[in-house]
Amino acid sequence: MAHTKTHDNSLAPSEIRRIDAFWRACNYLCAGMIYLRDNPLLREPLQPDHIKKRLLGHWGSSPGQTFIWAHLNRVIQLNELNMIYLSGPGHGAPAVLANAYLEGSFSAIHPEVSLNASGMLELFRSFSFPGKLGSHCTPEIPGSIHEGGELGYVLSHAFGAAFDNPDLIVTAVVGDGEAETGPLATAWHSNKFLNPIRDGAVLPILHLNGYKIANPTILARIGNDELTHLMKGYGWTPFFVEGDDPVEMHKKMAGVLDQCIAAIRKIQHHAKATNSPQRAIWPMIVLRTPKGWTGPDTFNHHQIEGTWRSHQVPLADVRQDPAQLKLLEDWMRSYDPASLFDSNGALLPAMQAAMPPPALRMSANMHANGGRLRMPLFMPDFKEYGVTVDRPAVMRVSPTAVLAAFLRDIMQRNPNNFRLFSPDENASNKLDGVYEVTGKTWLADRYASDDDGGHLCADGRVMEMLSEHTLEGWLEGYLLTGRHGLFNTYEAFAHIVDSMVSQHAKWLDKSRLEARWRAPISSLNILLSSLVWRQDHNGFTHQDPGFLDVISNKSGDVTRIYLPPDANCLLSVADHCLRSVNYVNVIVADKQPHLSYLGIEEAATHCAKGIGIWPWASSDEGREPDVVIACAGDIVTAEALAAVALLRTHVPDLKIRFVNVVDLYRLPPDTDHPHGMTHSDFDALFTRNKPVIFSFHGYPWLIHRFIYRRHNHANFHVRGYREKGNINTPLELAIMNQIDRYHLAMDVLNYVPRLQNQTSHFKEWLKGCLIDSVNYAHTEGTDRPEISGWTWPERKV
Amino acid sequence: MAHTKTHDNSLAPSEIRRIDAFWRACNYLCAGMIYLRDNPLLREPLQPDHIKKRLLGHWGSSPGQTFIWAHLNRVIQLNELNMIYLSGPGHGAPAVLANAYLEGSFSAIHPEVSLNASGMLELFRSFSFPGKLGSHCTPEIPGSIHEGGELGYVLSHAFGAAFDNPDLIVTAVVGDGEAETGPLATAWHSNKFLNPIRDGAVLPILHLNGYKIANPTILARIGNDELTHLMKGYGWTPFFVEGDDPVEMHKKMAGVLDQCIAAIRKIQHHAKATNSPQRAIWPMIVLRTPKGWTGPDTFNHHQIEGTWRSHQVPLADVRQDPAQLKLLEDWMRSYDPASLFDSNGALLPAMQAAMPPPALRMSANMHANGGRLRMPLFMPDFKEYGVTVDRPAVMRVSPTAVLAAFLRDIMQRNPNNFRLFSPDENASNKLDGVYEVTGKTWLADRYASDDDGGHLCADGRVMEMLSEHTLEGWLEGYLLTGRHGLFNTYEAFAHIVDSMVSQHAKWLDKSRLEARWRAPISSLNILLSSLVWRQDHNGFTHQDPGFLDVISNKSGDVTRIYLPPDANCLLSVADHCLRSVNYVNVIVADKQPHLSYLGIEEAATHCAKGIGIWPWASSDEGREPDVVIACAGDIVTAEALAAVALLRTHVPDLKIRFVNVVDLYRLPPDTDHPHGMTHSDFDALFTRNKPVIFSFHGYPWLIHRFIYRRHNHANFHVRGYREKGNINTPLELAIMNQIDRYHLAMDVLNYVPRLQNQTSHFKEWLKGCLIDSVNYAHTEGTDRPEISGWTWPERKV
Repeated sequence: MAHTKTHDNSLAPSEIRRIDAFWRACNYLCAGMIYLRDNPLLREPLQPDHIKKRLLGHWGSSPGQTFIWAHLNRVIQLNELNMIYLSGPGHGAPAVLANAYLEGSFSAIHPEVSLNASGMLELFRSFSFPGKLGSHCTPEIPGSIHEGGELGYVLSHAFGAAFDNPDLIVTAVVGDGEAETGPLATAWHSNKFLNPIRDGAVLPILHLNGYKIANPTILARIGNDELTHLMKGYGWTPFFVEGDDPVEMHKKMAGVLDQCIAAIRKIQHHAKATNSPQRAIWPMIVLRTPKGWTGPDTFNHHQIEGTWRSHQVPLADVRQDPAQLKLLEDWMRSYDPASLFDSNGALLPAMQAAMPPPALRMSANMHANGGRLRMPLFMPDFKEYGVTVDRPAVMRVSPTAVLAAFLRDIMQRNPNNFRLFSPDENASNKLDGVYEVTGKTWLADRYASDDDGGHLCADGRVMEMLSEHTLEGWLEGYLLTGRHGLFNTYEAFAHIVDSMVSQHAKWLDKSRLEARWRAPISSLNILLSSLVWRQDHNGFTHQDPGFLDVISNKSGDVTRIYLPPDANCLLSVADHCLRSVNYVNVIVADKQPHLSYLGIEEAATHCAKGIGIWPWASSDEGREPDVVIACAGDIVTAEALAAVALLRTHVPDLKIRFVNVVDLYRLPPDTDHPHGMTHSDFDALFTRNKPVIFSFHGYPWLIHRFIYRRHNHANFHVRGYREKGNINTPLELAIMNQIDRYHLAMDVLNYVPRLQNQTSHFKEWLKGCLIDSVNYAHTEGTDRPEISGWTWPERKV
Repeated sequence: MAHTKTHDNSLAPSEIRRIDAFWRACNYLCAGMIYLRDNPLLREPLQPDHIKKRLLGHWGSSPGQTFIWAHLNRVIQLNELNMIYLSGPGHGAPAVLANAYLEGSFSAIHPEVSLNASGMLELFRSFSFPGKLGSHCTPEIPGSIHEGGELGYVLSHAFGAAFDNPDLIVTAVVGDGEAETGPLATAWHSNKFLNPIRDGAVLPILHLNGYKIANPTILARIGNDELTHLMKGYGWTPFFVEGDDPVEMHKKMAGVLDQCIAAIRKIQHHAKATNSPQRAIWPMIVLRTPKGWTGPDTFNHHQIEGTWRSHQVPLADVRQDPAQLKLLEDWMRSYDPASLFDSNGALLPAMQAAMPPPALRMSANMHANGGRLRMPLFMPDFKEYGVTVDRPAVMRVSPTAVLAAFLRDIMQRNPNNFRLFSPDENASNKLDGVYEVTGKTWLADRYASDDDGGHLCADGRVMEMLSEHTLEGWLEGYLLTGRHGLFNTYEAFAHIVDSMVSQHAKWLDKSRLEARWRAPISSLNILLSSLVWRQDHNGFTHQDPGFLDVISNKSGDVTRIYLPPDANCLLSVADHCLRSVNYVNVIVADKQPHLSYLGIEEAATHCAKGIGIWPWASSDEGREPDVVIACAGDIVTAEALAAVALLRTHVPDLKIRFVNVVDLYRLPPDTDHPHGMTHSDFDALFTRNKPVIFSFHGYPWLIHRFIYRRHNHANFHVRGYREKGNINTPLELAIMNQIDRYHLAMDVLNYVPRLQNQTSHFKEWLKGCLIDSVNYAHTEGTDRPEISGWTWPERKV
């Protein structure tokens, strides 16, 4: 990487002309994408029939973004920068597409969109056309790792990309609409987590376009003093570039960009030279340009340029209204296409020089197709971390604490491409074992007292901040640039990132279907802990297993849900997930000490199958059972086994089959999900006509959603969280939702035909237990009956 | 309201002593809640058996909050303020409970928690005890309208409470952990929407406790310079109160609070006097105190006070460890309880004077039990806004545009207690008709060009900012203080507020069950528009109807989902929802022009039933049908009717029953939801054995989740969004997900037994239509075939 060159901040007129011409070329292409279905170079006078029948796309933010890109090209060339570009403004795709096209990256994927008139026309026609290119940045655009559909995540994505990429500069264009979202508003603080030695730089460009769909933006209407305070308060040094005169703006932008690159290099060099990774006050740019800059100024006595009226299609009735058609033609001809493109539609050679050499072009940067840079993790053998299980259901261990040792050694072996992300809950979720080999990144002020167990350091690889959005966004950016990670969070509050995770799943699905040139990236691994059933003490607000419902609405080709029943199974599942690519893996595992059932080898076999009979817990001895007791989830497995223990004691001749589900997607038919079971396999496990008492970790109807087409569905009785909770004891919470041992045993008595009409002593005893348990919970001080205070009979091997 | 009194900022020593004593009393109660099950007044030496068996609760933020409350009491008395207190820090309930108890508000609800030793003990024992009081602020606490479970919403709730409450000051304590969340980080900008004449004031107190669960907080570690910049950048004037010496801190806090109240009054008086509601730079306070202030300083060579170690229970092993027990006793005796409470456990009379008179006590403020202040809306007759439907399925109208006229007149008739909330999408969702009577609130800078269609004004009642979190939070605060409103958003992005809405539903459920003294509040009305089926042009990121799945996991006692099929039905549904209380009502209605089917009277009847046969669309003439075609959702209704039209033309002897569902909760059994149908009613509609082709707006499995126990379930074939999308035409998107007319008609041919094995001309024709439709979409320029280009046969009346 070359050193930053010094400048006198005065751009040579020829350089201004070159940048301006390149910018005009991009703007011309943007307008063409929105409007034209023919006559791409305007060789003929514009006719209504040259205009698309349905006008779609967003002009407003495009010229500002092409302006930025053109100027970034200059500093990339000058400084040989390794830079990627993230476009925050929702629908600025034309700007990014125009550059990806001119840089040849788009043609490399779609040869028919060639760098000539016919290719240009194909580009125009493809934009916002059914089955083709979206009107916002999508996975289909080379050079992009940031979807422009939902707003708010460009800064967290940018920081994720910069972590552990010391040579990279990530330019993040923040739309001033997007800047109003919560996730974006807090992501500015990511600079307190950026290490100037081990990480790259993020250069935010806050683009004050001034307007959203229908309103001014807040940040454009608080004055520069307040905005300066705000950016300084967020810990940045703002540089302002404001105006609408192209020549003046080119000079200003070039000067400011030179200052910013110099400032970034100075920070990085100083940190490296002194080997002191202090927090830096990094530069950022406030770019204030008119919305729809260089577009139509006014129409029909309404101001267009510089208002919300240019947010989408500034002239909407061009096919019908000759006045608008004329205005569009004047507008497009104002870019003087004949001076930009040759007669074949190729960019004139003089302007090629405005682009960096191919290897440095942002649309071709490998970091934006991170799968190509991805190296598999060096993984220790997960079996070495297994707990010994001589007899099932005796020893208690915290599953996540066991996982922590495995993660610790993964982090040790992969010091530069694996990070752990959590919203201040890593230790609470019992993953603090990783602090043996790495700390928590913290570049803000430190106190001496932090050394007493704070685990803070400048180059930690545990990322913590109290913002689920920022954490999850960092991880996405980290994965999209070819690295690995795990996000852990309290289960109930995973809903905070429902929409983000949903969008990432859509990104993966589109990449798989429509952008196969994207190399596979590491899966987004989400560990849900502090689970509903042990949030009895925190109460109702902390009880919500519904993240699984949100995930299961996404494409089955990119989603996986695992509910390991114990610590060894969690190890096996985690090993699998950390090796996988292109999925959203959700792992559900609690942090409290829970019973262990399977030895590590058994666990590996069980998890590989994803579902299976536990013969030692069953009493059917391979015959057709009277009842199937099934479960999915660690805590519900304990209660289901407790129910089996009761039944085997009190109804010894009952033939019980015990089935445990780890991989939730084994339940749907194989036609619905790649992991789904065939109907015959399903029937073999669950029978075609016997009652199945199914205890599920989450909302019970999720199971029905997967199995409603199974032959035996009518006999499935699913228990799960039914949104009944309070400040409870664990057992009481279980009872309220009927997943406790007593209710499950009672279910068996009620649904096995030959037991149905018996009024047995056992049934009465179960009822008594229920009453006693609740009374006990409410009267006996703060002592809390354990959910699983029982011993499993000697194991049959 | 009295004028602010002037002060010399020096508190009399007696006043310091009084405030300090009151503060110590509260802190004593906080510690007691966490630790004691006996010996509440420490009359005896503390014994292990006096200690709770399970220690729960959060000490860390409590003493800071009791400090704030004690000082607020002073300014309330001095200035006769109408003030409520919102506790942002997650688990600071002991502080709020202590005050609600001392103020008598808690005893008024729970007489057994009386203001004496036995009541105090009951309070201690109830705290964090199964079935009793949560460890964070919950609906059970009088004076609170803000749940402390999930973090991030205290400022948006506070502003919602302040809107249209000109006499009210809402003190919002912002935890420095919470301040890192996205929703909180952007909610500071709410001050650009606060009108100093028509609204009340919000006084944020950023409580720099310094630590979260396991980490320092960002805002406590950026220095006061940066923090000052940040707050000024957000548009506030920060006042700092920092330290740990109680006497000094009392003086500082009193002085700063006097300044803040004076500043608030000055702003308000100036605005009123000049009748110019300008945006004001309101005061806010930065309070920096040690976490766990006044608690144990160190233990076992670890610093406790002032670190994350005092976040929850600072001494965790008190029952077992005599050293810890001694430390606890010293700590609690340091408050000198004998000087605070009389021998009966009542607060000493001298200290009663530290509390405001009963009418001004924050825990008794009526605004925090907003249902008691709620007035029903003055509603025009919704039927007057109905569109004329001479023949079904002919006229197209935008349902939301029709709704806008109704909303407009509601807003006109209710100028002070109804607001409309939208994240910059109100006009996009075609509700801009309301601008005839009110504008959009905007106190930030205005330009002359805004007058050209901007609809911005200082006292508008349409609230827009590009933050779903802030908007939804404002609305919750507005409702909880007794007013009315509607939130409208793009359907796909409703997921952004999944967690917020879920928490509000839990609040309503708990209020219903555990806090019946709370008077009913207006329902949280959420209008989802810009629906999945017409986001064909925006593409895959904008297609997600899964918010309904999240809502349907919440208690059926507080959730309602409506899918009005046309404009008149939308009017009827909206009328119902706006009159209702204590629900989360979700209404699904698109903004594009869609067909109308029912006259306004028919619509009212149909919506009152929530589900029904449309005889004019059916051909069974009241007999047992061959097939039931059912639908729920506006766009899918159009396609289902188109399928019926095709079938009636091509298979004229087929007996079709057409069922439309408006109220989704009619589908589950009456045992599952109050709106559920009995099995016999369900069978009467859907038959016990005929095929049912059910076209659903959302993910199809949601329907199965509701009906899996119905007799005829096995014959239900549900179509809906299957997460298949791209940039499409509407028809193509429908086809990809099989909700289009051709697929539905084919379903009928495939599932009606007597048609199954026929290879008819009609079947071939349908296949051809499918192929043609997709081809047409992909070849015919940007022209997009309409989803419903058909005419319904003459109506049979």
